[in-house]
Amino acid sequence: MKWCRIEIDGSPAFGILRNDVIAVVDRVPFDKFEYTGQIVPVTEATFMAPVQPQNFYAAGLNFRNHITWANEHFGKKFQVPTEADIGYRSPNALTGHGSDVIVPADSRGSLEFEGELVLVVGKRAKNLSEADAMSCIAGCTLGNDLSEREWQFNDRTFWRAKNTDTFKPMGPFVATGLDPMRQEVTVSVNGKEVSSYSTEHMIFSVSQYISRMSRYLTLHPGDVIWLGSDGPTMPGLKDGDVVEVSNPSIGTLRNRIVRAV
Amino acid sequence: MKWCRIEIDGSPAFGILRNDVIAVVDRVPFDKFEYTGQIVPVTEATFMAPVQPQNFYAAGLNFRNHITWANEHFGKKFQVPTEADIGYRSPNALTGHGSDVIVPADSRGSLEFEGELVLVVGKRAKNLSEADAMSCIAGCTLGNDLSEREWQFNDRTFWRAKNTDTFKPMGPFVATGLDPMRQEVTVSVNGKEVSSYSTEHMIFSVSQYISRMSRYLTLHPGDVIWLGSDGPTMPGLKDGDVVEVSNPSIGTLRNRIVRAV
Repeated sequence: MKWCRIEIDGSPAFGILRNDVIAVVDRVPFDKFEYTGQIVPVTEATFMAPVQPQNFYAAGLNFRNHITWANEHFGKKFQVPTEADIGYRSPNALTGHGSDVIVPADSRGSLEFEGELVLVVGKRAKNLSEADAMSCIAGCTLGNDLSEREWQFNDRTFWRAKNTDTFKPMGPFVATGLDPMRQEVTVSVNGKEVSSYSTEHMIFSVSQYISRMSRYLTLHPGDVIWLGSDGPTMPGLKDGDVVEVSNPSIGTLRNRIVRAV
Repeated sequence: MKWCRIEIDGSPAFGILRNDVIAVVDRVPFDKFEYTGQIVPVTEATFMAPVQPQNFYAAGLNFRNHITWANEHFGKKFQVPTEADIGYRSPNALTGHGSDVIVPADSRGSLEFEGELVLVVGKRAKNLSEADAMSCIAGCTLGNDLSEREWQFNDRTFWRAKNTDTFKPMGPFVATGLDPMRQEVTVSVNGKEVSSYSTEHMIFSVSQYISRMSRYLTLHPGDVIWLGSDGPTMPGLKDGDVVEVSNPSIGTLRNRIVRAV
């Protein structure tokens, strides 16, 4: 099953993908739901981020090749993490498939994509073993962890670099039943593939992250866990560039970059 | 006006303080509201965090004396921030006045209080000038930014150190009409005062923070901004210790420390 959240008459609604239409349902389809009878063609839908999470977790550095690349590219000395220490973003930055990413006019740094697989929590969970970790996950979606590098390296926190409004596109669909450790994530800019990797190369597995997180914190329905990106990204997204993050089972998350003037 | 969020029959409800009772209202009292007629004595109320924020901002280092103390106490070299760069926490960690703070059994580090004034956003806001910054604030409450120092200094992020479930007590009331730059915050442990400071010594003012934040991000009703703490804290909160964060206009946020075994 693939589901999404769309805007209908100014309000959010959930729907299930049926070929080229979205069949609207009466609640977030984590568990039980009813069809309302309303149908929206995919081509006419206004996509929102699939959930509005209470907690927005992000793995940060979770692929060796990305760490190697980042150290060469930025002249940094990022270490390979020794524990699955999760990080955070703030939900204000989320936006949906198809919306514009607005870069503030005073940004002078390089804006760079990071295409990521994202877990959506569907059940409240605490103290899960690694074996049971996936029991709380409703499905997988895609995210673009857009980062303004000058702010990232010079501000005291990531607040502007990664959490400016619209800097966190997520979607388009949540796909159920996927193995998050066996997914391909591909990024294209203006139709040209610029990055492709498999999630099998994670330093810490999805189960290791979830089990360790749930020892200290309660996972809540709707929480999201972004799993980090592998390999290189690309400097200097420009006004009008279209970035696509794709996975064969989830679809394509497409957003245009708009540099405010 | 002083308002709060309490649990009634397992569900959250908002209420207005009237002497020694809470008069229940039909919604969060940012703007219009109606009394339901239900009354709960303060002594019988189960307090929740006054809001469940979508975004949980925290100023971190915003008082010079606290930075000086932290550098001496921890042997660190924290710098005085040059810009009002806000940080984040995650809402999972919030808990209410009167609840226990549960320290995981594997914690070996020192657990320390940080009593803080907290702003509660009441109106959606973007691009506010410093002169207009306070127009989006519904009121002030109190927070205890409890921190496990071994995790804080050794983990790659603050995820456990500051965001373990129950590590962020907030409340008890939101007081309207206060000047957040002229508030006294006092902390007591087991009835003995251990810290007291005035918010007038902030490095960046409340208006500077809000104006700068709102240039990059939208503030949403219910968002909270924790303003940092001044002066020293105290190492080694123990099982059974009772920590109180107080302000004359807001009241006393009281929580007991429980070390899980």
